Amino acid sequence: MVVVIDRALGMVFDSGIIYHFGLPFRGCFCFYKLLSYPGMTMTDTHQRFATLLDKLGEVAVKAGLNLRPGQELIISAPIEALPLVRTITKYAYQVGTTQVTPIFSDNILKKARFLYGHEAIFDYASQWFADGIAEAFQNGAARMAITGEDPSLLSDIAPERIARATKASSIANQKAMKLITSFATNWTIVAFATPEWAAKVFPDIPIDQAVENLWEAIFTASRIRGTDPIAEWKDHNAQLNKKATQLNTQRFSALHFTGPGTDMTIGLADDHFWAAGAEETQNGIICNPNIPTEEVFTTPHRLRVNGHVQSTKPLSYQGNLIDNIRVTFKDGTITEAHATKGEDALHRMIANDEGARRLGEVALVPHSSPIAQQNILFQNTLFDENAASHIALGQSYSKCMMNAEALSDKELLEKGANQSIIHVDWMIGSGEIDVDGLSQTQERQPLMRKGEWV
Amino acid sequence: MVVVIDRALGMVFDSGIIYHFGLPFRGCFCFYKLLSYPGMTMTDTHQRFATLLDKLGEVAVKAGLNLRPGQELIISAPIEALPLVRTITKYAYQVGTTQVTPIFSDNILKKARFLYGHEAIFDYASQWFADGIAEAFQNGAARMAITGEDPSLLSDIAPERIARATKASSIANQKAMKLITSFATNWTIVAFATPEWAAKVFPDIPIDQAVENLWEAIFTASRIRGTDPIAEWKDHNAQLNKKATQLNTQRFSALHFTGPGTDMTIGLADDHFWAAGAEETQNGIICNPNIPTEEVFTTPHRLRVNGHVQSTKPLSYQGNLIDNIRVTFKDGTITEAHATKGEDALHRMIANDEGARRLGEVALVPHSSPIAQQNILFQNTLFDENAASHIALGQSYSKCMMNAEALSDKELLEKGANQSIIHVDWMIGSGEIDVDGLSQTQERQPLMRKGEWV
Repeated sequence: MVVVIDRALGMVFDSGIIYHFGLPFRGCFCFYKLLSYPGMTMTDTHQRFATLLDKLGEVAVKAGLNLRPGQELIISAPIEALPLVRTITKYAYQVGTTQVTPIFSDNILKKARFLYGHEAIFDYASQWFADGIAEAFQNGAARMAITGEDPSLLSDIAPERIARATKASSIANQKAMKLITSFATNWTIVAFATPEWAAKVFPDIPIDQAVENLWEAIFTASRIRGTDPIAEWKDHNAQLNKKATQLNTQRFSALHFTGPGTDMTIGLADDHFWAAGAEETQNGIICNPNIPTEEVFTTPHRLRVNGHVQSTKPLSYQGNLIDNIRVTFKDGTITEAHATKGEDALHRMIANDEGARRLGEVALVPHSSPIAQQNILFQNTLFDENAASHIALGQSYSKCMMNAEALSDKELLEKGANQSIIHVDWMIGSGEIDVDGLSQTQERQPLMRKGEWV
Repeated sequence: MVVVIDRALGMVFDSGIIYHFGLPFRGCFCFYKLLSYPGMTMTDTHQRFATLLDKLGEVAVKAGLNLRPGQELIISAPIEALPLVRTITKYAYQVGTTQVTPIFSDNILKKARFLYGHEAIFDYASQWFADGIAEAFQNGAARMAITGEDPSLLSDIAPERIARATKASSIANQKAMKLITSFATNWTIVAFATPEWAAKVFPDIPIDQAVENLWEAIFTASRIRGTDPIAEWKDHNAQLNKKATQLNTQRFSALHFTGPGTDMTIGLADDHFWAAGAEETQNGIICNPNIPTEEVFTTPHRLRVNGHVQSTKPLSYQGNLIDNIRVTFKDGTITEAHATKGEDALHRMIANDEGARRLGEVALVPHSSPIAQQNILFQNTLFDENAASHIALGQSYSKCMMNAEALSDKELLEKGANQSIIHVDWMIGSGEIDVDGLSQTQERQPLMRKGEWV
């Protein structure tokens, strides 16, 4: 009899890289071939791509995580992202990680639960895995997520099933999520251009070209094209940090957005805090939780938003595109909401709970950011929220409140920090938007003109 | 900021299948293409393969695991086995599993730890994951492992590093492993023909043909070619069980093997128990832990093996092939060990500990078994041990002792059940081997003649 060993319970979880030939732009569906093929020849395109992918992996480990020797590393990734996981794993072991645990997901496996699962299972989520992850974080494991989802994977699944499964998963993962959002350990998210994602971003061109285009956009946005991307990330962080520090010093009581279709005053929460770029973990590691990141963001006051605002990019929400959103706020809550496309989805979204009609985040992004300049709707928040100034309906971030760790949920609410089961970002910035800061005494100071920092 | 959600901590672990086009025999490196390609056409070969793979998945879920509604399922698999994982996941959800958690491994990730890891890490293993798995088993999760390793993946890594990592992993996984070996839950192992494995089994033919040949061998060995493989597995189990029951009734005190180069008497442990085929878990589920399985096996007495024996197939051990093993036993322990190839590896193996020179298992397999008839050296114990009668040096199975759960390790040892950190099976059966059973009073009863049951 053979007992479950090796792969089964043990050495599966020892991981890394030998060769990576990378993902060719042509024949992208077949890139696994290139990974395994002995004696293959690499074209210049492959070589150039392999170099860029290697840089992205290095930036993810060294600037994104700032991985320390002796830390474990947990990486989740779409199965298509194997070449990047291999690169990251190589760098992680070179830095001195003790063990890389890769967690691969597959669209078809993910969807199967909804297609074939018995009705009773959607309120169930594995607790053992969530608890294990939380334990790993408590023991100092670093966390990397590679994003590359098909944005409309579940668009034909009953929303009610998805909602139940999401809720069950949220509850199971509460502890782990709290450790992440409170930066108990270092974590980061980077992107991988899967064919399924690329096809949604560039629906009108051949898939190979779509994947190539998406990769070029990711490489540019992730600031890895220079000769020393690690140093460039340091500079970029310094600039973002300078901007956040200015805003924290100025302590505006409100922001005023004006532009085509937009005239809105967003009161800021009492003791709001502007965050940007790198974060320091509780044990003193400086990490970049999002690659890319261009935003400087804080917490609106849940009761002090007034006026009307118009979206400047479509919003991809649960497989639906919601376009030309026009919303009116009074005393923090939405009183009217329209969209030329997907208005039903918009109404469903803001009906989730009372907090879903109020703002949980406001973020400023200059129109000249490398992501905005690409003028692509990525249908992935990691990119789209860094392409334009934006607001988010729903839950606020405790890290965007001063001394949040010492405050109860009730105290945070009283200071104006919104609470909700949703957090949905949508874009309101463009090259035509002006933003002013308003002081406690209603003195007005220009912050952005035509989408650029003053 | 985007916080690690969805893929990261939550819905990753919801899994399943939409379409599976299976793995084509030609262009096997590119089978991922077939999985993703919209509008592809399937050839007859693809269709035939897809049907067989689907049957293997169904047998794995229904005969291998006998999965019950409400059970979670944890599947570990080489990343290349994605098509089979998808099929299995579909059947698992249809049966009523609550959640399938796939754990994919990758050769290059696995090897990277040894290539790039700092020297200090090889005594370290993740405890959180092992504990999580154990917790899942305790809560009734079923366990499937898909085997398809490259048998010589780590052959160029320093054996000392592998030994340290294996030991650390064994210690971390002790609890989970004990739950598996004591059948606290239902589990099974099935095979997937990865290109790396196929290339080792059929080194002299083109890789596509090697993969095709290996698949044909797996399908035959796994008994899934008939119209109702689930029923066939039931029959097969009944036959194996009948044979084991006969042997348990006869209660031989020893077996006597004779044939070319072999004349060996294997005393059986006091209160030895013959096992075969399906097993009943502690909570009453009948599962087939190994697909395929052909053996009827029990525990030798660690002090009562005498004579000499010659291997009938090469042994693949830690990346080395050991051929033409000739070993002499006296009072249970090896006094002389030779091999025409890999003798050093053989000597290293039996030097692991005192128990490594003694037998922990003896198994009878008829030469007419569908695996033996294929005459392939799979270099994978799941297959090779079912191709011929065999013995194993090292650790014994508690399930092959009566009432083992009530006995201490010391009591088991006193009854003759061997203990060791190794358990290495090697083949001593062929069409030229006779086996007799010897009663307490040395009465001789023929069990096998020319490799076949009498």
